[in-house]
Amino acid sequence: MPVFLDSTATDFEIAFDALLNAKREDSPDVDDTVAAIIADVRARGDAAVIELTERFDRLSLTPETLAFSPAEIEAECAKVPAVERDALELAAERIRAYHVRQKPDDARWTDPDGATLGWRWTPVSAAGLYVPGGLASYPSSVLMNAIPAQVAGVERLVICAPTPDGKANPLVLLAAKLSGVDTVYRIGGAQAIAALAYGTDTIRPVDKITGPGNAFVAAAKRRVFGKVGIDMIAGPSEILVIADADNDPDWVAVDLLSQAEHDESAQSILVTDDAAFGQAVAAAVEKRLETLERHAIAGASWRDFGAIITVRDLDEAAALSNRVAPEHLELCVADPEALSAKITHAGAIFLGQWTPEAIGDYVGGPNHVLPTARSARFSSGLSVLDFMKRTTLAHMTPAALKAIGPAAETLAISESLEAHGLSVRARLNKLNEAGE
Amino acid sequence: MPVFLDSTATDFEIAFDALLNAKREDSPDVDDTVAAIIADVRARGDAAVIELTERFDRLSLTPETLAFSPAEIEAECAKVPAVERDALELAAERIRAYHVRQKPDDARWTDPDGATLGWRWTPVSAAGLYVPGGLASYPSSVLMNAIPAQVAGVERLVICAPTPDGKANPLVLLAAKLSGVDTVYRIGGAQAIAALAYGTDTIRPVDKITGPGNAFVAAAKRRVFGKVGIDMIAGPSEILVIADADNDPDWVAVDLLSQAEHDESAQSILVTDDAAFGQAVAAAVEKRLETLERHAIAGASWRDFGAIITVRDLDEAAALSNRVAPEHLELCVADPEALSAKITHAGAIFLGQWTPEAIGDYVGGPNHVLPTARSARFSSGLSVLDFMKRTTLAHMTPAALKAIGPAAETLAISESLEAHGLSVRARLNKLNEAGE
Repeated sequence: MPVFLDSTATDFEIAFDALLNAKREDSPDVDDTVAAIIADVRARGDAAVIELTERFDRLSLTPETLAFSPAEIEAECAKVPAVERDALELAAERIRAYHVRQKPDDARWTDPDGATLGWRWTPVSAAGLYVPGGLASYPSSVLMNAIPAQVAGVERLVICAPTPDGKANPLVLLAAKLSGVDTVYRIGGAQAIAALAYGTDTIRPVDKITGPGNAFVAAAKRRVFGKVGIDMIAGPSEILVIADADNDPDWVAVDLLSQAEHDESAQSILVTDDAAFGQAVAAAVEKRLETLERHAIAGASWRDFGAIITVRDLDEAAALSNRVAPEHLELCVADPEALSAKITHAGAIFLGQWTPEAIGDYVGGPNHVLPTARSARFSSGLSVLDFMKRTTLAHMTPAALKAIGPAAETLAISESLEAHGLSVRARLNKLNEAGE
Repeated sequence: MPVFLDSTATDFEIAFDALLNAKREDSPDVDDTVAAIIADVRARGDAAVIELTERFDRLSLTPETLAFSPAEIEAECAKVPAVERDALELAAERIRAYHVRQKPDDARWTDPDGATLGWRWTPVSAAGLYVPGGLASYPSSVLMNAIPAQVAGVERLVICAPTPDGKANPLVLLAAKLSGVDTVYRIGGAQAIAALAYGTDTIRPVDKITGPGNAFVAAAKRRVFGKVGIDMIAGPSEILVIADADNDPDWVAVDLLSQAEHDESAQSILVTDDAAFGQAVAAAVEKRLETLERHAIAGASWRDFGAIITVRDLDEAAALSNRVAPEHLELCVADPEALSAKITHAGAIFLGQWTPEAIGDYVGGPNHVLPTARSARFSSGLSVLDFMKRTTLAHMTPAALKAIGPAAETLAISESLEAHGLSVRARLNKLNEAGE
């Protein structure tokens, strides 16, 4: 059973804090192992990657077979049934249409002192996307990582996707093809991250690495951060549903289970202004769990981390949700737009009862790589901006330098940075000599 | 003497790679110490912070005196001479005017399937800015960190600034006041970062921590990353100047020295298409070093990491600069705008010989917190966006769900995520029953 909370109860704050701070994931400490793997790949390059792939994925590769050949990719893609291909194409098209709108604008202006200022956005040159192998090998994640990079204008886009025992996922390769990926390496783990960050004879280094992975991949990404850019380190998935009584309890139940089925550490929370509706959803969850394929995982997540919270009104629901800062937030209420305006922290909002969260995982358009573990307080989902960077621009005229240079000189001297001041003074002296 | 390179030399690639990969900083490994300090602050809160401040800063505090009182701040600010106050106010005004333009736009649209999509930006609720004590206590950095946060709309803005032996920097407090900072704590080091991330009885936790610091501060920021957001981990400063022969060698020399004087690990590089001009700049640097206050630091940086590179033409200069991805790039050439268009990786560009880099450190307007150590390949300077986050929005109608829901269901099933598919199917069944 999930925990049932009532915001009018005297011990509510204590119970809600316990929910907020529940430790859901015990990451194994693999940092030493990962450090050794990275050092090995830096020292021995391809040879190390090949040995580690043999050991962890039971797969024998050579430098020539580290990447899928174009013919292999075609052969794998051909295995995808038409209905799945069509679905993936629709998803790719909608994700692209959404992300194209994220392309940022350059800016340029001249201020009253005559200084021309601005900024310019440029793409990173090369990005590497990690795609886990096995059960968590999701073609939708390939689209969600690769399409923003492609839209950003990244020149070289590669994937590392381990194929344990040589088993590839045709949908992953099709998704890669649909989103402009140049090369797919069949390697994984910390060795793949090390190869992407530092390069080997066969694998050219990239500037940015994104994509989910297990504890080894996460630790490796943390370690190479600084040498290359990385995206966030994703934790287990979460959903918070705010629903009034005018909803089908079964719909809300499957929505809660759609996060719970990801992972035993996932968290699903219902906040409702109607206690009886909360009970009805709890019953509907139990009923759905009876037949759900992943009932063991979803059941454990719901039992250990699920919660149903009854609140006085929707304003209180919004305030509690803001304290959670959920990755996914569904607003199943009569006026979802009005409630949405009260939400200050959430990765993604799904408005109204016709917008199940799963739409956003695949075909809605917005990215499904979203901040977990309350990090929506300070971070955003993956976007085109993650594959671009901004260069600031400043262009002074002699008149502009004369107007603002003395203040720079004053501050430089106050900070004991004499050469900073002299670099301004040398030019101002020239202007003074010239009588300008 | 700096290294002299010539792009036409046969060993140029080897020498340039060595320059690119020179290890300029040996950060001491303070990770274990920092982990212990963080654990101590989490366990004992204020008491730990006070004890550590006594030990490291030789300053006795109580919970009541952890922060400067409003009267203390006023008293310190009153010590600032009018000329410095005016300079700081001009800087604040110009930095604000630049950063206001960075405020991102929300978006909302309805697509042909009837789905309403978009995103909305919101500020982080609370930010903490770290300001080093002692020599590197720069009021300009307070402005550069606090003003973007203030422009973003951050509700609560606090500073941690150690005051070794109780010595405060009046300009730092004035800068804090000018940029809307609510509270200034006189604490520093890993203990300050831990207090900002986890909170104590006196210090409320924040959501984002930015600002430069020593090895202990940097290690602490790495450790609390995830619990809170952080900015980049800054390395030693760098400048690359591309200059043709039509420049005053002395101006270029002081510009190079204005980075070199920051730190013995700083790096200053001149790229020129005229070897004689390069020699003239080298001579001008030596002359300026004779009298420079910080000649020991600047001289060591120039000797160990400085470089003068002669190239065939400005196109080659741009290509080499892009491989360096410098933090600061000056374009002292006849047509800086044309050359700027060829730059793909740089933190900030200063166009033309009337724009010394130091203008950008203080009063230009753009931020001076910029990506170091070649990270301009994948990251940007500090901006308003660093204190905001984006929530994506999706609102389906029944018709939109009917149009795109089946593809989501197909992909969910292909990923073995049954509940994801069921959350769509339950709604589609309802529409089918209703004959819609």
